[in-house]
Amino acid sequence: MDSMSIIGMASVIASAICMGIGSIGTGLGEGRAVQQALMAIAQQPDEKGALTRTLFVGLAMIESIAIYCFVISMILIFANPFWNQVIPKVVAGG
Amino acid sequence: MDSMSIIGMASVIASAICMGIGSIGTGLGEGRAVQQALMAIAQQPDEKGALTRTLFVGLAMIESIAIYCFVISMILIFANPFWNQVIPKVVAGG
Amino acid sequence: MDSMSIIGMASVIASAICMGIGSIGTGLGEGRAVQQALMAIAQQPDEKGALTRTLFVGLAMIESIAIYCFVISMILIFANPFWNQVIPKVVAGG
Amino acid sequence: MDSMSIIGMASVIASAICMGIGSIGTGLGEGRAVQQALMAIAQQPDEKGALTRTLFVGLAMIESIAIYCFVISMILIFANPFWNQVIPKVVAGG
Amino acid sequence: MDSMSIIGMASVIASAICMGIGSIGTGLGEGRAVQQALMAIAQQPDEKGALTRTLFVGLAMIESIAIYCFVISMILIFANPFWNQVIPKVVAGG
Amino acid sequence: MDSMSIIGMASVIASAICMGIGSIGTGLGEGRAVQQALMAIAQQPDEKGALTRTLFVGLAMIESIAIYCFVISMILIFANPFWNQVIPKVVAGG
Amino acid sequence: MDSMSIIGMASVIASAICMGIGSIGTGLGEGRAVQQALMAIAQQPDEKGALTRTLFVGLAMIESIAIYCFVISMILIFANPFWNQVIPKVVAGG
Amino acid sequence: MDSMSIIGMASVIASAICMGIGSIGTGLGEGRAVQQALMAIAQQPDEKGALTRTLFVGLAMIESIAIYCFVISMILIFANPFWNQVIPKVVAGG
Amino acid sequence: MDSMSIIGMASVIASAICMGIGSIGTGLGEGRAVQQALMAIAQQPDEKGALTRTLFVGLAMIESIAIYCFVISMILIFANPFWNQVIPKVVAGG
Amino acid sequence: MDSMSIIGMASVIASAICMGIGSIGTGLGEGRAVQQALMAIAQQPDEKGALTRTLFVGLAMIESIAIYCFVISMILIFANPFWNQVIPKVVAGG
Amino acid sequence: MDSMSIIGMASVIASAICMGIGSIGTGLGEGRAVQQALMAIAQQPDEKGALTRTLFVGLAMIESIAIYCFVISMILIFANPFWNQVIPKVVAGG
Amino acid sequence: MDSMSIIGMASVIASAICMGIGSIGTGLGEGRAVQQALMAIAQQPDEKGALTRTLFVGLAMIESIAIYCFVISMILIFANPFWNQVIPKVVAGG
Amino acid sequence: MDSMSIIGMASVIASAICMGIGSIGTGLGEGRAVQQALMAIAQQPDEKGALTRTLFVGLAMIESIAIYCFVISMILIFANPFWNQVIPKVVAGG
Amino acid sequence: MDSMSIIGMASVIASAICMGIGSIGTGLGEGRAVQQALMAIAQQPDEKGALTRTLFVGLAMIESIAIYCFVISMILIFANPFWNQVIPKVVAGG
Repeated sequence: MDSMSIIGMASVIASAICMGIGSIGTGLGEGRAVQQALMAIAQQPDEKGALTRTLFVGLAMIESIAIYCFVISMILIFANPFWNQVIPKVVAGG
Repeated sequence: MDSMSIIGMASVIASAICMGIGSIGTGLGEGRAVQQALMAIAQQPDEKGALTRTLFVGLAMIESIAIYCFVISMILIFANPFWNQVIPKVVAGG
Repeated sequence: MDSMSIIGMASVIASAICMGIGSIGTGLGEGRAVQQALMAIAQQPDEKGALTRTLFVGLAMIESIAIYCFVISMILIFANPFWNQVIPKVVAGG
Repeated sequence: MDSMSIIGMASVIASAICMGIGSIGTGLGEGRAVQQALMAIAQQPDEKGALTRTLFVGLAMIESIAIYCFVISMILIFANPFWNQVIPKVVAGG
Repeated sequence: MDSMSIIGMASVIASAICMGIGSIGTGLGEGRAVQQALMAIAQQPDEKGALTRTLFVGLAMIESIAIYCFVISMILIFANPFWNQVIPKVVAGG
Repeated sequence: MDSMSIIGMASVIASAICMGIGSIGTGLGEGRAVQQALMAIAQQPDEKGALTRTLFVGLAMIESIAIYCFVISMILIFANPFWNQVIPKVVAGG
Repeated sequence: MDSMSIIGMASVIASAICMGIGSIGTGLGEGRAVQQALMAIAQQPDEKGALTRTLFVGLAMIESIAIYCFVISMILIFANPFWNQVIPKVVAGG
Repeated sequence: MDSMSIIGMASVIASAICMGIGSIGTGLGEGRAVQQALMAIAQQPDEKGALTRTLFVGLAMIESIAIYCFVISMILIFANPFWNQVIPKVVAGG
Repeated sequence: MDSMSIIGMASVIASAICMGIGSIGTGLGEGRAVQQALMAIAQQPDEKGALTRTLFVGLAMIESIAIYCFVISMILIFANPFWNQVIPKVVAGG
Repeated sequence: MDSMSIIGMASVIASAICMGIGSIGTGLGEGRAVQQALMAIAQQPDEKGALTRTLFVGLAMIESIAIYCFVISMILIFANPFWNQVIPKVVAGG
Repeated sequence: MDSMSIIGMASVIASAICMGIGSIGTGLGEGRAVQQALMAIAQQPDEKGALTRTLFVGLAMIESIAIYCFVISMILIFANPFWNQVIPKVVAGG
Repeated sequence: MDSMSIIGMASVIASAICMGIGSIGTGLGEGRAVQQALMAIAQQPDEKGALTRTLFVGLAMIESIAIYCFVISMILIFANPFWNQVIPKVVAGG
Repeated sequence: MDSMSIIGMASVIASAICMGIGSIGTGLGEGRAVQQALMAIAQQPDEKGALTRTLFVGLAMIESIAIYCFVISMILIFANPFWNQVIPKVVAGG
Repeated sequence: MDSMSIIGMASVIASAICMGIGSIGTGLGEGRAVQQALMAIAQQPDEKGALTRTLFVGLAMIESIAIYCFVISMILIFANPFWNQVIPKVVAGG
């Protein structure tokens, strides 16, 4: 197995694992936040505005963690410095 | 095992794992959100509109995480830069 | 192990894992949504229409995640670009 | 290990895993839905009709996920394109 | 390891795994459904008929998932197309 | 490792795994059903007959899943088609 | 590793796993059933007879699953057809 | 690795695993039964006799599962038919 | 690796695993029993005697399971028949 | 496998694992914090200001843990001292 | 790897695993017992004496399980019969 | 694989694992603390000051554990004594 | 791999695992005990003295389990009899 | 792989695992303690002093377990006796 194969393989698998695992905690966390928002609105309809605002800030915070994972995955696929390092070497004297 | 096999194999498995694992947290999270929406509507039918709107925004946020996973899977299958890099090499002097 | 075997094996296993794991979260999530719908209808029969509508929208959202998994599985079995790439190579000079 | 063995082995194991894992979430989800239906009927016998109808729609949705798994398993056993591709090759010059 | 051993081994293990894992979710799901049926009958003895009917429909749905697993196991043991493909080959020039 | 060893080993392990795992869900499920039956009888002694009948039907359904596992195990030990296929081959030219 | 070692090793390990895993679900299930029986008797001492009878039937059902595992273990140790098949072969031309 | 080492190693590990895993479910199950017995006696001291009797029958049932595991372990250590089969062979022509 | 190393290694690891895993269920089970005893005494101080007696019988039952594990571990370390079998062989012609 | 491949592969996988796992606990923790904030605002709307402030401080603390993970991932991808050490060596006399 | 290395390595790892795993169940069990003791004293301060006595007996029982693990670990480190057997052999003709 | 590759690889993976796993418990623990702080402020707004102070001390304690992990990760990346030991050796006579 | 490497490696890893795993149960157990102590003091401030005393005895018992793990780790690092046995051998004729 | 690589690699990974795993139980335990402290202060503001003091003692006990892990990690990185033993050997005749 030459360098190219190894680093390519690792990048492909790593980007998938990162996004896949990264969706577990954030998906559940957002589900839980939305769940409580609905219950809170049902209990206290007069505070609808404040509740919705707080919910959106919270969702944005959690979504940001999911987006970190997405960014890492995208970097590993499209702007991978290890891969870029490997390619010229292969082209030159692979 | 040549480069092509390795990267192909990794891409196939990675895209499946990404989508598969990515559905656990989001499926449960959406289920939990819908569950509470129904209970909230039953408790406070007058707020049906606000509850449904909040539910849809929440579901959209969670769905977006599932869609990140779907996008990663699709990129790995149909627009895989590692694979595209490997093919000409094989065609040329495989 | 030649390219064909490896990519074929990976595709078969990946499609099964994707659908299999993909059914865990969605199956549980839908079960939870239906569960609450029934309890909500029992508590508030007058809102039967709204509850059923919300339930169906929610189930459709969750089902869509299960269908993403099904689509990935189907693509890996019947429209696998890696496999299509490998076959001519084998036919030509396998 | 020749192509035939590998792809055959992978198909056999994959079809079993797919159906096996696919039954966990759906079995539990349906059990939970039925559980609540019974409790709802006991609480609100007058809505028996609506509850049963909603239960059946819900069960059908969950069952459909189990059936996706069953379909994938069946395709992998009886209409496996990878296996069909491999057999003539073996017959020709195995 | 020749083809026969590999595919035989895989089939044996796969059929056992499929049925074994397939019993977890369905066993628990049925147990939960029966559990609630008993509680519902204790709470509302007058609806005994409707509750029992609903329970049986629900159990039949869950049992059907267990039976899918059983069918896959049986097919893998007694009507395995991969195995049938392998045997003549072995007989011919094993 | 010749065919006989491999298939024998696989059959032994598979039959044990199938029964072992198969007892987890069914054992817990039956325990839960019995648990609730006792509580229901304590709450509603007048419905003793109906509760016991329903319990026995439910236990029979769950037991049937355990018996599927037992049947698979027994087939793998005493009526294993893969093993029967392997033995003459060994006797002939082992 | 000759046939004898492999099948012997597999049988030893399989029988232990089968009984070991088989005790998890049944042990917990019986514990749960006994737990509820005690609570039920404390709540409704007048139904002591019916509760004890139902408990014993339930425990017998669960115990039967544990005994299936025990039987499989015993068969694998003392009446193992694979082992009996292997021994003469070894004696003859081991 | 000769037969003796393999079967000896397998027996040692198997007996330990069998007893070790076998203690999880039964230990928890008995703990739960005792736990409830104490609570039941505290709630209904007049039924002390019946509760203690039922508790002991239940503990005996659960203990019997732990003893099955102990028996299997002991058989594997001191009356192992596979080991007995192997020893003369080694003595004869080891 | 000669016989002595293998069986020695297996015995060492097995005895540790047996006792280690064996402490999980029993430790938790006893903790739960003690927990409830304290609560029961707090609720019903007049039954202190009967509660303590029942607690000690229960703890003795659970402790006995832990002691089975301890016995297996000790046998594997100090009275291991497999090890005793191996040593003379090594001394003779190791 | 030369140094470059190994360290490259390790870095790619490590950065993905670090971010992926790092999102589980923080995602769930933030979800739980937001969940309670919404319930608290619904119960005590007059303290909206204090609650929101406390929520944001808490989210910031939890987010900081997620950012530690992100920083480690980024360092491993773009400022990896091990990689920088390896490259000149390869360029010089790889 | 000679005998000494293997048995030494196994002993080191086994003693660590035994104590490590052995602390999980006992640590949690003791925590649970102490937890309830505190609650019981708060509810029934007059029974402080009896509660503390019962707590200490219970903790001693659970601690004894932890000490079994500690003893096994210590025996494996300082009085290991397998190690003592191996050393002279090495000194003699290592 | 020379020393440099091995230790480099180990350091990269170790630093990622340490931070990744280290975020699970601390993230959940902080989430739980914040959650309760919000509920406590909602219940007892007059004690806002004391509650916030206690919360911050508690968060600082938990954060310190996360920072231990971060420190270990940073040391392994930027001040790794093993790596520093290895480099001159490689430079000298690699 | 010579003896020194193997036993050194095993000791390093074992000491880390022992302390790492050993902190899970004890950390959670102590957390649970402290948790309840605070609640008990809040409910019954007059018994502060007795509660604190009982808490400290309980924490000492749990801490002792953590210290057993710490002792094992320290012995494996600084007073390892296996390591001390190996070193002279290496110095003499390594 | 020479001694230096192996022991270095093991030390790096062990120190990371020890701290990583060591933060799970302690992080959750402290979170739980803080959580209850806040609730207790909200319920009984007059006992603020005693509650805070008890909380800090408890946190110190739990933190001490985390610090044991940190100490082990630090010893493995900066005062590793195995590493110190290995280096001169390598310098002398590596």
